[in-house]
Amino acid sequence: MHGVSLPRFYHPQLATDERTLDPAEARHAAGARRLRAGERVVLFDGQGREADAELLHAAGATMTVRVHAVRTVPRAACCRLTLAFSPPRPTRQDTLIEKCTELGVAVLQPIRVERSVADAPCSRLERWHRVAVAAAKQSQQAWLPEIAEAVSLASLLEHAAEHDLVLVADPAPVSPSLASILDRRPPSGSVLALVGPEGGFTEPEIAAARDAGAVACRLVPSILRVETAAIAVAAIVLAR
Amino acid sequence: MHGVSLPRFYHPQLATDERTLDPAEARHAAGARRLRAGERVVLFDGQGREADAELLHAAGATMTVRVHAVRTVPRAACCRLTLAFSPPRPTRQDTLIEKCTELGVAVLQPIRVERSVADAPCSRLERWHRVAVAAAKQSQQAWLPEIAEAVSLASLLEHAAEHDLVLVADPAPVSPSLASILDRRPPSGSVLALVGPEGGFTEPEIAAARDAGAVACRLVPSILRVETAAIAVAAIVLAR
Repeated sequence: MHGVSLPRFYHPQLATDERTLDPAEARHAAGARRLRAGERVVLFDGQGREADAELLHAAGATMTVRVHAVRTVPRAACCRLTLAFSPPRPTRQDTLIEKCTELGVAVLQPIRVERSVADAPCSRLERWHRVAVAAAKQSQQAWLPEIAEAVSLASLLEHAAEHDLVLVADPAPVSPSLASILDRRPPSGSVLALVGPEGGFTEPEIAAARDAGAVACRLVPSILRVETAAIAVAAIVLAR
Repeated sequence: MHGVSLPRFYHPQLATDERTLDPAEARHAAGARRLRAGERVVLFDGQGREADAELLHAAGATMTVRVHAVRTVPRAACCRLTLAFSPPRPTRQDTLIEKCTELGVAVLQPIRVERSVADAPCSRLERWHRVAVAAAKQSQQAWLPEIAEAVSLASLLEHAAEHDLVLVADPAPVSPSLASILDRRPPSGSVLALVGPEGGFTEPEIAAARDAGAVACRLVPSILRVETAAIAVAAIVLAR
């Protein structure tokens, strides 16, 4: 749901002068958007800066713009949310990346766990970056999620104390609901949320997360796919 | 995230005797699942009933099962959530239906509004039903969402008083957050949530919803696609 807005393009190095866009961005401008010289566009760097710009030249994979004033856009979210997840099968990964970017997740952190079904090699991370760029354009955000290299759950938990709140999604009926946890501890600062693979985290993994200070919690009463659990956590936390 | 479980099949009329499955279900059993005579399966009717059953015969599109005890499964959700939405483009509809089914939405109600980009003819509703059946299997639910025929927003609002709480997603910064609304009015009974098209509801549409008793609310600070807004509303409400 969005109002009418100027076409947006990603450029990782914004400065007030002439800039040449990445060929993929340029093809998008010249092709799907049919933009021509003189049109106004917006550039964003994915790090909270955006700029009004004017299209100087567009032909095929070459597009040059003149950047006017660069402005900074603060994060609107209640907290800096790191979403750590065991990647679902490749066909379901794009949905996770796209929706979590739209919702305003700050860091997407793939993790390796006992029941992992997919890894996240560098080639996947590049694809995820492209998906995130497209989603950030769509949702008119100046921030892109940082897409981190995959780490083991154990390595991630070594840094758990750096976060203000650590959550681990656990569908066990005895776990308190995430909503009740957030009532007591409104999310702010840095929040880390862990979402397991199909089949869930193992009991030792849940125990290790708890030992590192994580609060185990249910999301909704039903059983969710990995990407749905990730999207639900992001929506529930970032709605606060 | 789910534990090991028996294969699940949809049968809209459960009874304790021999049942023949729908050909699409039977092909799934014989093909992807490679099930054979004697194996245990679970049938569900989408109306809160499920049954243990034994596979008697499976060959191509014909599959017969013997149904043992039929049990009723209450809805686990905090409320009966009707999600009314202006359908996004067809390529994005399946994600909405699949994720909202996993999350436990009770009724999926397509609506026609001024900025609608897609209609929901009967052929789409049949496809959505198949997507919902697949999602209900995956999330081991005995309930399917009711998939209603498309109606105009005005017609839907005539029945707004039948719900205990009516919400309309409105990204205007002046709207209170959905989370703050739910803090004051915990969802129970019947809840209707309205999600608009790309471009949002028009101001007269928001006004009409308010006149019918709807509470306008923001979801998260960022701008969401239609299907993402629908999934986020479902997650935020059903997490209570």
